[in-house]
Amino acid sequence: MSQAPALPSAVEAAAEIRAGRLSSEKLVRSCLERIAQREPEVQAWAWIDAEQALAQARARDRETPRSPLHGIPVGIKDVIDTCDMPTGYGSPIYANHQPAADAACVAQIRELGGVILGKAVSTEFATRHPNKTRNPHRLTQTPGGSSSGSAAAVADGMVPLALGTQTSSSVIRPAAYCGVVGYKPSFGLINRAGMKFLSESLDTIGVLSRTVADAALLATQLAGIPWTPPGAAMARPPRIAVCRTPYWAAADASVQSSLIETAARLKAAGAALVELELPAMFAGMNHLQVAISAYEFYRALSHERIRHPDLLSASLSARIAAGGRVSRAEYEAALVDTARCRAWIADAFAGFDLIIAPSAPSEAPELSNTGEPTFGLMWTLLQLPCLTLPCGTGATGLPLGLQVIAAAGCDPDLYAGAGWIEHQLAR
Amino acid sequence: MSQAPALPSAVEAAAEIRAGRLSSEKLVRSCLERIAQREPEVQAWAWIDAEQALAQARARDRETPRSPLHGIPVGIKDVIDTCDMPTGYGSPIYANHQPAADAACVAQIRELGGVILGKAVSTEFATRHPNKTRNPHRLTQTPGGSSSGSAAAVADGMVPLALGTQTSSSVIRPAAYCGVVGYKPSFGLINRAGMKFLSESLDTIGVLSRTVADAALLATQLAGIPWTPPGAAMARPPRIAVCRTPYWAAADASVQSSLIETAARLKAAGAALVELELPAMFAGMNHLQVAISAYEFYRALSHERIRHPDLLSASLSARIAAGGRVSRAEYEAALVDTARCRAWIADAFAGFDLIIAPSAPSEAPELSNTGEPTFGLMWTLLQLPCLTLPCGTGATGLPLGLQVIAAAGCDPDLYAGAGWIEHQLAR
Repeated sequence: MSQAPALPSAVEAAAEIRAGRLSSEKLVRSCLERIAQREPEVQAWAWIDAEQALAQARARDRETPRSPLHGIPVGIKDVIDTCDMPTGYGSPIYANHQPAADAACVAQIRELGGVILGKAVSTEFATRHPNKTRNPHRLTQTPGGSSSGSAAAVADGMVPLALGTQTSSSVIRPAAYCGVVGYKPSFGLINRAGMKFLSESLDTIGVLSRTVADAALLATQLAGIPWTPPGAAMARPPRIAVCRTPYWAAADASVQSSLIETAARLKAAGAALVELELPAMFAGMNHLQVAISAYEFYRALSHERIRHPDLLSASLSARIAAGGRVSRAEYEAALVDTARCRAWIADAFAGFDLIIAPSAPSEAPELSNTGEPTFGLMWTLLQLPCLTLPCGTGATGLPLGLQVIAAAGCDPDLYAGAGWIEHQLAR
Repeated sequence: MSQAPALPSAVEAAAEIRAGRLSSEKLVRSCLERIAQREPEVQAWAWIDAEQALAQARARDRETPRSPLHGIPVGIKDVIDTCDMPTGYGSPIYANHQPAADAACVAQIRELGGVILGKAVSTEFATRHPNKTRNPHRLTQTPGGSSSGSAAAVADGMVPLALGTQTSSSVIRPAAYCGVVGYKPSFGLINRAGMKFLSESLDTIGVLSRTVADAALLATQLAGIPWTPPGAAMARPPRIAVCRTPYWAAADASVQSSLIETAARLKAAGAALVELELPAMFAGMNHLQVAISAYEFYRALSHERIRHPDLLSASLSARIAAGGRVSRAEYEAALVDTARCRAWIADAFAGFDLIIAPSAPSEAPELSNTGEPTFGLMWTLLQLPCLTLPCGTGATGLPLGLQVIAAAGCDPDLYAGAGWIEHQLAR
């Protein structure tokens, strides 16, 4: 990656803006300069208009700050509608499509004083088929998907914050591959009106950022959770469950040793560690996620599969066809099994504050695919809040992530715990 | 209402079409004739184009039947997107708005061989503020809301089937007021991609029809549930719990006596009857529904409340403002209380097959409002499948409904049980 970006974090920048030492316009200009320099190689943006972004920034600079997000530029994954920027859902079917309205979260960001910088590249309908974005750490590698542009733009210092979406592992995986923070909230935390649905019982809007506090800042403002600026350490180090998951064998040696070594490091820093062995029923969770999501996206993408089959990728067409073969009975059976796993994990959290687990099976693979969602599927289906932190590098020197998971609905505990881990990893 | 409509049920018409004794074109023509005659008074349609409907019907008549729905016209509530018909969401903000794609359920209906007849009037964003539709039984009275046009069109014999949506009581109430069947499935049965969201944890797409079998036909086809044509009686009469609900005092004398007398009649027909007294915690459920929905629609309607406050009705503006005052903590507490009630009712269903309860507090009130959702809120929040059947008349001779409720996910049991009750009420 060409020299480390100088962009401040969103929390830092917002404080400077509030203090009158930084203008939103200046901040947005620094983003646009970085984009001008790097976009030809990284290709993180589906659509961006410098003048439109600057006009928003200047308007914000004329106001009293509206919120702790005031003046901060945010990238929006291109499966989320914007009323003044085209929204292509990562598909040629929607080339130049202009929605009539902002998605709820976009309208809220504007209301909070944020600047909508542009639309970040998504894979095709937020599924696995890659789009044009490249990993800023090594341009021959994937940034991961489906929030490819959001992760790459944040990693490259083009924008401090971006919205992504996750149905399988589409926030956690690209964040891990790009060496940034990726936060998938508890199911339902960020309102989904105006996003392109893929699997409505799983789709979750999340945040890409460079710090835990930045991710928390944006999510709390959208959900109406009181915002506590970071700084105060946790009263005590967290109780952490180390979870290899039923998919441990899919993780390469660097990922396995990273988790084990990080756990030891956190223990040395004072965390109480336990091993979390999941019962046998969890071994089927990735299959449950695939069945549930396939049943749903066969239906959600009905218009596209019926009217525009020739404009769908071969891989998506195959997945849709598989979804059409999932019966209602299989779907309902998968929901019953899922409920059982959710209940088990809710009880298990009595014994610890956080789980740590791999974020992805390896470093970022080559551009021809967006990598495997292996370590995201289960946690998404469990509806738990998850956050990946950059955590060292793999065999070829690309970033690895550490996934931190809290109990359902306990997103503020995740911010505190992941913030503590972030602090330890930075030492 | 001007003379009883001659329109056959969807199940009957589809059988005639399959047998070659009826064409879709002829069926659609009879709908269009009724509409031409009655629409100036009833005003059930936000948009309809006779030629476009007939063109679809003729295309279906050239094909081998695709499904048990082949050739059947369906009205679509105007909060559900259509790619070839404008979709106004019941609001002047979206006058002449043309979506780029069909909602999932609309695309599926076309795939099944159904004919999209037109867009049925919705109240403003499917909330309570009335639109132009009038009750076909008495034009001075409301058809109910928010699925006003869907219920009125079906009641008036303009179309055998229509899609509605329910967040509070927006399928059950208008169906009861208009004297038709209204079916709100278990949460999540019909895919919601492409509908205008109001409250994503409650919004449910449902069906208006004149028979239980018709409602079941459309829903099962969309969800992929095997379709069993009606006719075979239930093996045994159902076990029915009579539930006055905590809101009994809100029901007028005619509604109260209708429920009690109907219960006696069903008992005489062989049903095993029990009284279901809900625990005290259920008395707060309507308040929980209001808190949860308000928190969500404050967010879901962000674009509209921020950009077009002058185009929102005063009543919706007030409800949105109230939603902005529901804190995340209150919202989450309401979800916890709701989960407790869901668990209780799931267990309670061990003792009976169905619940019967009032559908609405009274006959249809005057046009100035769409009536009270009192008897819908709780069941919607519980995510249970509900169906209202026409059940006699109230003090001034307008229709009353009987609400039949089954356990979550047990929609086929609801079809069977409500079909049995429908049969008894017709004797």
